[in-house]
Amino acid sequence: MGKKNSNGPIKKAAAGRSSALSDWCRDYKGACYTFEESMEMARAFHGYPAPGLVLGVRMVSLAMAHLPEKTLFDAVTETRSCLPDAVQILTLCTVGNNWLKIMDLGRYAVALYDKTTGNGVRVGIDSQKLEKWPELYAWLFKTKTKHEQDSEALYRDIQNASESILNTKRIAIQPRHLLKVSQGAIDVCPGCGEAFPVAHGNICRVCQGDTPYRISDTARMEKPLKSAPSVKRVSAEQAVGRGLLHDMTEIIPGEKKARLSDTDR
Amino acid sequence: MGKKNSNGPIKKAAAGRSSALSDWCRDYKGACYTFEESMEMARAFHGYPAPGLVLGVRMVSLAMAHLPEKTLFDAVTETRSCLPDAVQILTLCTVGNNWLKIMDLGRYAVALYDKTTGNGVRVGIDSQKLEKWPELYAWLFKTKTKHEQDSEALYRDIQNASESILNTKRIAIQPRHLLKVSQGAIDVCPGCGEAFPVAHGNICRVCQGDTPYRISDTARMEKPLKSAPSVKRVSAEQAVGRGLLHDMTEIIPGEKKARLSDTDR
Repeated sequence: MGKKNSNGPIKKAAAGRSSALSDWCRDYKGACYTFEESMEMARAFHGYPAPGLVLGVRMVSLAMAHLPEKTLFDAVTETRSCLPDAVQILTLCTVGNNWLKIMDLGRYAVALYDKTTGNGVRVGIDSQKLEKWPELYAWLFKTKTKHEQDSEALYRDIQNASESILNTKRIAIQPRHLLKVSQGAIDVCPGCGEAFPVAHGNICRVCQGDTPYRISDTARMEKPLKSAPSVKRVSAEQAVGRGLLHDMTEIIPGEKKARLSDTDR
Repeated sequence: MGKKNSNGPIKKAAAGRSSALSDWCRDYKGACYTFEESMEMARAFHGYPAPGLVLGVRMVSLAMAHLPEKTLFDAVTETRSCLPDAVQILTLCTVGNNWLKIMDLGRYAVALYDKTTGNGVRVGIDSQKLEKWPELYAWLFKTKTKHEQDSEALYRDIQNASESILNTKRIAIQPRHLLKVSQGAIDVCPGCGEAFPVAHGNICRVCQGDTPYRISDTARMEKPLKSAPSVKRVSAEQAVGRGLLHDMTEIIPGEKKARLSDTDR
């Protein structure tokens, strides 16, 4: 099926499930992917093969390997960066179906747990074991800027270090996270006329002022928006002393939005 | 490429981009999908073809059609339910790369905006126009339980109503949402020994008590977790007056986790 990823390798037949991973990662159906295929999956879903995502699919695979077969599991990531996408690439847990919860705890770790019992497994990075892998250390602790980073060495470190830098622990999810909370009754907001959960108040949260954008009142769009101003390319000499319209990234319109940034793990 | 979806239709060649959609939805590369293919994509990514997701891919496609070609866009959803997955299925904006922001505003709407200018388009549901589509109305306002819902009629309503129930407005994102915030310095947490952002405090947030689970101190997992207790099937007569171990869902282990619930849109 399509989903942003028509150019990659064909999905392999489901393999048996064990805690030893012969390939780099494995999805919830048991299909295995090499390191290179994992990079390609990351690019297709996430826009580029972020190092943290390439490591992340290994972490999720390891966690799945420690769950009993056919466990109906939910997922938690302790970071918002990259790792949620590793869960979404390999499992049916997504933010939209709420089987994946993202918690902004700042640690690069993922947990999968039986949705009935709350028992599961957490995979994190053992920072003590990173000394042998200088680029991986520099990436996790951000001791180098992206410009200083040696991407090839970093991917090599990730691949060679593999599970040796990960730790796996049993977890028991707090019962309140097993509860399914209903939105409750829905009504028409007297402010904007849209459907909203009554539990939010007399008017919807947007009409209460909690809005990320200004919405134009000129109703429907008649024609497409104008493009951003086009950029004139000039030589470095001509540019000296002039303003910079855009950051110097590796943007490829429609394909890739930015080079690896400080927040890309 | 694999990604949970090997059994669906092959992705079509990229088609031209216009605001008129001949098929049900279109991804960021211009590839089009029929209604049935969209259902299949929803099932492959999200676990089941949630009505809100099937409508959602149409909403995202409509929003994309109103952006100038090759716009580098970010996305915002005003709900956590389903719609974020429509964005992740059709575009490169994901939660993990932070090009998709999810705001819990309780309205079923999505906005895409130029990441440079902040100008974009929002697609929402016009609740005034739902009267002609009783199942769609019942779904949005939750006037029927899932048991009462006529799924076939609902999908038919979605397909037939299509864009007639959607509204499209220009938006300008607030400048603070265009800022890229760095995590800042990373250090080893003296509590747990894991890497964490120093901005979170002297110890990481988990060591501060903000944890969704109890982590076992017995270090590494030696063997897979035990399965949940198996359920003995008994006839309704035998069950009268006994406790219920599990809810009566349509769970299929490893494939489908639950029937459509009250929070599925």
